[in-house]
Amino acid sequence: MLDVAAPYYEPVGHECELFEYAFHQKLPLLLKGPTGCGKTRFVSHMAARLGLPLQTVACHDDLTASDLTGRFLLQGGETVWTDGPLTRAVRNGGLCYLDEVVEARKDVTVVMHPLTDDRRVLPLDRTGELLEAPDDFMLVASYNPGYQHVLKSLKPSTRQRFIALELGFPPPEQELKILIRESGLPREKATALINLANRLRELKGQDLEEGVSTRLLVYCGRLIQAGMPILQSARAALVEPLSDDEDVRDGLMETISATFGG
Amino acid sequence: MLDVAAPYYEPVGHECELFEYAFHQKLPLLLKGPTGCGKTRFVSHMAARLGLPLQTVACHDDLTASDLTGRFLLQGGETVWTDGPLTRAVRNGGLCYLDEVVEARKDVTVVMHPLTDDRRVLPLDRTGELLEAPDDFMLVASYNPGYQHVLKSLKPSTRQRFIALELGFPPPEQELKILIRESGLPREKATALINLANRLRELKGQDLEEGVSTRLLVYCGRLIQAGMPILQSARAALVEPLSDDEDVRDGLMETISATFGG
Amino acid sequence: MLDVAAPYYEPVGHECELFEYAFHQKLPLLLKGPTGCGKTRFVSHMAARLGLPLQTVACHDDLTASDLTGRFLLQGGETVWTDGPLTRAVRNGGLCYLDEVVEARKDVTVVMHPLTDDRRVLPLDRTGELLEAPDDFMLVASYNPGYQHVLKSLKPSTRQRFIALELGFPPPEQELKILIRESGLPREKATALINLANRLRELKGQDLEEGVSTRLLVYCGRLIQAGMPILQSARAALVEPLSDDEDVRDGLMETISATFGG
Amino acid sequence: MLDVAAPYYEPVGHECELFEYAFHQKLPLLLKGPTGCGKTRFVSHMAARLGLPLQTVACHDDLTASDLTGRFLLQGGETVWTDGPLTRAVRNGGLCYLDEVVEARKDVTVVMHPLTDDRRVLPLDRTGELLEAPDDFMLVASYNPGYQHVLKSLKPSTRQRFIALELGFPPPEQELKILIRESGLPREKATALINLANRLRELKGQDLEEGVSTRLLVYCGRLIQAGMPILQSARAALVEPLSDDEDVRDGLMETISATFGG
Amino acid sequence: MLDVAAPYYEPVGHECELFEYAFHQKLPLLLKGPTGCGKTRFVSHMAARLGLPLQTVACHDDLTASDLTGRFLLQGGETVWTDGPLTRAVRNGGLCYLDEVVEARKDVTVVMHPLTDDRRVLPLDRTGELLEAPDDFMLVASYNPGYQHVLKSLKPSTRQRFIALELGFPPPEQELKILIRESGLPREKATALINLANRLRELKGQDLEEGVSTRLLVYCGRLIQAGMPILQSARAALVEPLSDDEDVRDGLMETISATFGG
Amino acid sequence: MLDVAAPYYEPVGHECELFEYAFHQKLPLLLKGPTGCGKTRFVSHMAARLGLPLQTVACHDDLTASDLTGRFLLQGGETVWTDGPLTRAVRNGGLCYLDEVVEARKDVTVVMHPLTDDRRVLPLDRTGELLEAPDDFMLVASYNPGYQHVLKSLKPSTRQRFIALELGFPPPEQELKILIRESGLPREKATALINLANRLRELKGQDLEEGVSTRLLVYCGRLIQAGMPILQSARAALVEPLSDDEDVRDGLMETISATFGG
Repeated sequence: MLDVAAPYYEPVGHECELFEYAFHQKLPLLLKGPTGCGKTRFVSHMAARLGLPLQTVACHDDLTASDLTGRFLLQGGETVWTDGPLTRAVRNGGLCYLDEVVEARKDVTVVMHPLTDDRRVLPLDRTGELLEAPDDFMLVASYNPGYQHVLKSLKPSTRQRFIALELGFPPPEQELKILIRESGLPREKATALINLANRLRELKGQDLEEGVSTRLLVYCGRLIQAGMPILQSARAALVEPLSDDEDVRDGLMETISATFGG
Repeated sequence: MLDVAAPYYEPVGHECELFEYAFHQKLPLLLKGPTGCGKTRFVSHMAARLGLPLQTVACHDDLTASDLTGRFLLQGGETVWTDGPLTRAVRNGGLCYLDEVVEARKDVTVVMHPLTDDRRVLPLDRTGELLEAPDDFMLVASYNPGYQHVLKSLKPSTRQRFIALELGFPPPEQELKILIRESGLPREKATALINLANRLRELKGQDLEEGVSTRLLVYCGRLIQAGMPILQSARAALVEPLSDDEDVRDGLMETISATFGG
Repeated sequence: MLDVAAPYYEPVGHECELFEYAFHQKLPLLLKGPTGCGKTRFVSHMAARLGLPLQTVACHDDLTASDLTGRFLLQGGETVWTDGPLTRAVRNGGLCYLDEVVEARKDVTVVMHPLTDDRRVLPLDRTGELLEAPDDFMLVASYNPGYQHVLKSLKPSTRQRFIALELGFPPPEQELKILIRESGLPREKATALINLANRLRELKGQDLEEGVSTRLLVYCGRLIQAGMPILQSARAALVEPLSDDEDVRDGLMETISATFGG
Repeated sequence: MLDVAAPYYEPVGHECELFEYAFHQKLPLLLKGPTGCGKTRFVSHMAARLGLPLQTVACHDDLTASDLTGRFLLQGGETVWTDGPLTRAVRNGGLCYLDEVVEARKDVTVVMHPLTDDRRVLPLDRTGELLEAPDDFMLVASYNPGYQHVLKSLKPSTRQRFIALELGFPPPEQELKILIRESGLPREKATALINLANRLRELKGQDLEEGVSTRLLVYCGRLIQAGMPILQSARAALVEPLSDDEDVRDGLMETISATFGG
Repeated sequence: MLDVAAPYYEPVGHECELFEYAFHQKLPLLLKGPTGCGKTRFVSHMAARLGLPLQTVACHDDLTASDLTGRFLLQGGETVWTDGPLTRAVRNGGLCYLDEVVEARKDVTVVMHPLTDDRRVLPLDRTGELLEAPDDFMLVASYNPGYQHVLKSLKPSTRQRFIALELGFPPPEQELKILIRESGLPREKATALINLANRLRELKGQDLEEGVSTRLLVYCGRLIQAGMPILQSARAALVEPLSDDEDVRDGLMETISATFGG
Repeated sequence: MLDVAAPYYEPVGHECELFEYAFHQKLPLLLKGPTGCGKTRFVSHMAARLGLPLQTVACHDDLTASDLTGRFLLQGGETVWTDGPLTRAVRNGGLCYLDEVVEARKDVTVVMHPLTDDRRVLPLDRTGELLEAPDDFMLVASYNPGYQHVLKSLKPSTRQRFIALELGFPPPEQELKILIRESGLPREKATALINLANRLRELKGQDLEEGVSTRLLVYCGRLIQAGMPILQSARAALVEPLSDDEDVRDGLMETISATFGG
């Protein structure tokens, strides 16, 4: 399950260096940032760059500690232990990435504790094993600070086990490079789209819960590049995914028409 | 499980082109629209038109990620992995349609994440597999924006992974064509029924949660065409399914009587 | 599981014709009406009249979709699929009657969706089958509109998939016929009992949640006909089942004594 | 599981006759009454008198329909169906008594429905059987009206399927007979105890949720008869079981001391 | 599982006699009293004195009726019934002690009902057995009245099945005897500790939820006797276990220093 | 699973002596203290010093009593009992450490009761065993008093079974020794970092839920020692893990810049 070719990633600051320091110092890393800003891509990129296998787990309400560590399965009338993704990473080395860790249940965050202090061990109570993480094991977790609420937040006793890094949307110049590379749009059209995105992002917070992500910009660029009319592409990729409110959508479409002509 | 003959679908706008662009650009698609406006029919139609097998999953409160991805079943004393509908679509290609995705539990929406960004993969944590979606795999999801509430809504981090399209009830001319085709009613009677439907739809929001859908109109047309008296047909297909409130139903019957004579 | 002899049913309006139209037009039917008015009897009657096997499912809080569609059971060390009542009806034809469908969990109402639109199919995700309903399959559901509340109600997206019919208590002349036939009481005594019932029903809403049902009247008639004193029969069948409140019961007994003498 | 000797029961009114009418008319019976008034004893008595086997089920929050109807159990690698107590009574005839039925979950009350209308059948969805109750099958349920609250009450659609009977504490003359018979106390001491009980019962409602039951009186009589001092016996059997409040208990002990001398 | 040597117990009143009367009259017994006052020790003592095996069950939120009565376990491909502690006590005789019964779920209290009235039987619905309790079976339950709240309390219908007894902390003379015996402290030091405890107990209710228990006094005495400085022993055994509030703990330490000198 | 070399631990007060007294007097010990102050390290240190094997269990919402005591697993078609970590410690002797015990469910705290009074036994209801703890068995539990709230707190009946000890952050001189030893930083830089930490800790309570822990200080020291610029190291290890609030983080960075120069 090795990601062989390092996926394209355009660094915004010193995040790659920090990641490498954390890896070599055997410190767990916490990524913070909004939807679609590239957290997952960043982790894939670093895994490939460091030559490490990557185990990605998308966390959710019903994810249990057993989904991470493993469980007994019936085989030939015997219950046989089967490692989960976290255990695989601890046993064999490599990155284990827990995406949106805040969504997971409490037992999942607690299972990380002995791996994220000086012990760096994973006790498997059900098999009686105590696995020591090898030097090339690294735990990375991410979450979106904008979503946290009372019931779902990281306890200080968990947060204080990580060094942390905040990622945001890339600055215009870099977002332009990403958009051109991922959608194939010519520079001129891509620049117009970036400008539009920034105008739409200014509307965030009033009626929109989140601004246009880089991912949606790329979607829009690909539809345009494939031949779909600009306004239809913008409606499908930049307007409908952001809101169900008719007034909000009309407002967004007006801004778009004003930019690209009606 | 291939839908061989393309089911009849009467396009309202550019929705068929948008669907095809999304398919060829490998973008996931989100359909928004009210009850009975034809979302499911539209997906069946497009699946047949693109020559793709279709896996439809009606989402609900108790649908788990395992219902989509698969589970271990006991066979001959062994636990054998059995693919769920989403895994089947990823393994073999084709459309996977998640109907009313907002009703599903959080773990179901999270399972779609790695399939709806640039990775297009489905990690099966329990088997340790990482399936890459083939070029002809497409994920379509739908929901009714009118029902969303605090506990049940799509998180931006999920929505921003789709391009989106809103469908509504067809305009009168098209609804007339659909009604005639599906019920066999003569044009004159069908026109009268369409007019009635639009008069009833104007009452929506006051005492009615939802207006008469195209589907109920077709039901009414079929009862009339089969020989049931018009007023009885209208009561059974257009009044009783919409409300339990006696005053509301009396009001609806008055409008109907006024249209078709007492 | 064929009901061979058509159970006695005394029609109140055009409900038998409507049922037959719905069956022949392959439309699902929703029955609305109060406790003990004869919904279940009506369905048994129509099943026998149309010569169809009948699967009845009493819905409740803990009924799951699997209880309807089927599940894997262990047989000889293998997990073997076993059809539930809905699947049996779809596979072999006949009526499937979901009694008090509002009580069921959401996944049960969603499982009906593909059977109640033009597709008329039942997808069994766990076996990978897609069953097409035969022409003589019909789905009937019932509920009591008087009980609906916020947490328990049919969503419009489910209701609009049915044509609907409201049943009430039979008018006096018919209730008399039913009472005589089912209890064996002579006409005079039965008439007195019907008069009493109607007097008691006028008290409904003040202190009583529901009025005396036809079923309780028949119970009372059978006790009297078996030789139990009238006042004791009325207390046991018409008073105690309706209320635990001492004042209410005293009021009811007064009305009864006034009718039949102390 | 036949109760051979009819347990002693002292009738208060016409409850034995009503029970017999209900049995012969095949009507289900609902018993209402306070804690310790003798509902369970009454049912055992009637079962023995009618020569019927008795299945008693104490209902509670976690009792499921399967606990009543049966379940599949693994035997020699096969899942074998095993009848629950309700199914045993339906298959073989006899009384099935559901004690404190209000405590049971909704699926339990619904499972009784087809057995408590004119069908008198028990559908076993999981085996596909439809059992017809024999003539000597009778369903009896009980509850304490004093405990009912919003979340726990019998729905009218369930209540109206039963004829009903209210039991209370026996009048003094009868309670005396019971106390003497069950405790062996001489008449004089027993009379004093009955008088005390009635004085204590007058305090109910002020600080006490329930009055002294006949059962506790018998307990007290047995302790006294075995040689334990009267005041100690009364404290252990009549005071401590009724309240944890120190003032209330002091008040009760004062009344007792005043009666039997300090 | 016989407790051979009777554990040391210092009676406070007539509790031993009452226990023996209850045993010989086959009445179930309910013990009420605060944390650490010796309820469990009392039961062990009586079990040994009466020569009865003892089954102790510590009740809690997740304890189910099956944990008490037994369950089917897989052995050699068969499901084999395995008795729980209550069933073992009923089958073989002896004491069954349910500690903190209020913490258990409702199904646990209901399972005791047929054992705590004149029937003295334990119906095992899942095996179809009806066990009669032998003469030397006795059921004892305990709870702490100070903890009861709305959701967790014994229903009158359960309480009225027991005779009851309240235990408190022993009076000073007896507590002194216990402390000397269990810690080995010389009389003088023990007396000082008892005096301190009573001073600390006077603070209860203001800032402390519970006063110092006899158990903690014994802990403190053992630490002192083992050579740990008095103030450190008192902090570890009498202060830190009672409160996390800094002001409260400072207040307690002041009282202690004032007693034993700073 | 023996921790062979005693991990480095720098005592703050008499905690090591108290631990040893508790061990020799067979008293269970409760550790109280904030996140990252060294509770787990202290327990590992003492286990090694006393030559005892250590079982550590990180408690959480979904930890059940069975996770501690053991469960039946299928092996060769038989259900075979498998000890949990608490049972292993009781059977073989040694320390069992329940980290953050307040997070566990109630059944977990109740399972400790018979081990934490004079009985020192572990009843395994499911196997019928009653294990007596050997002399070298010791139970240690910990929690963070700062997190307790209504739903999650230790009941007095549990707390009063332990002697208790509060740990805090080490005083500056000792923290300096720890920091130098664990990060390899030269004394001068380490002193500057300690001073910074204390300045940051003064901000706690205003906008910060918890202050900088010793663990984060060590992380920061290791990053600096590895060559990462001081300000970047401080942001990653001391600022981002503490807060998501932009103003708070700016304030923290200002303090840091003022200390180390911009």
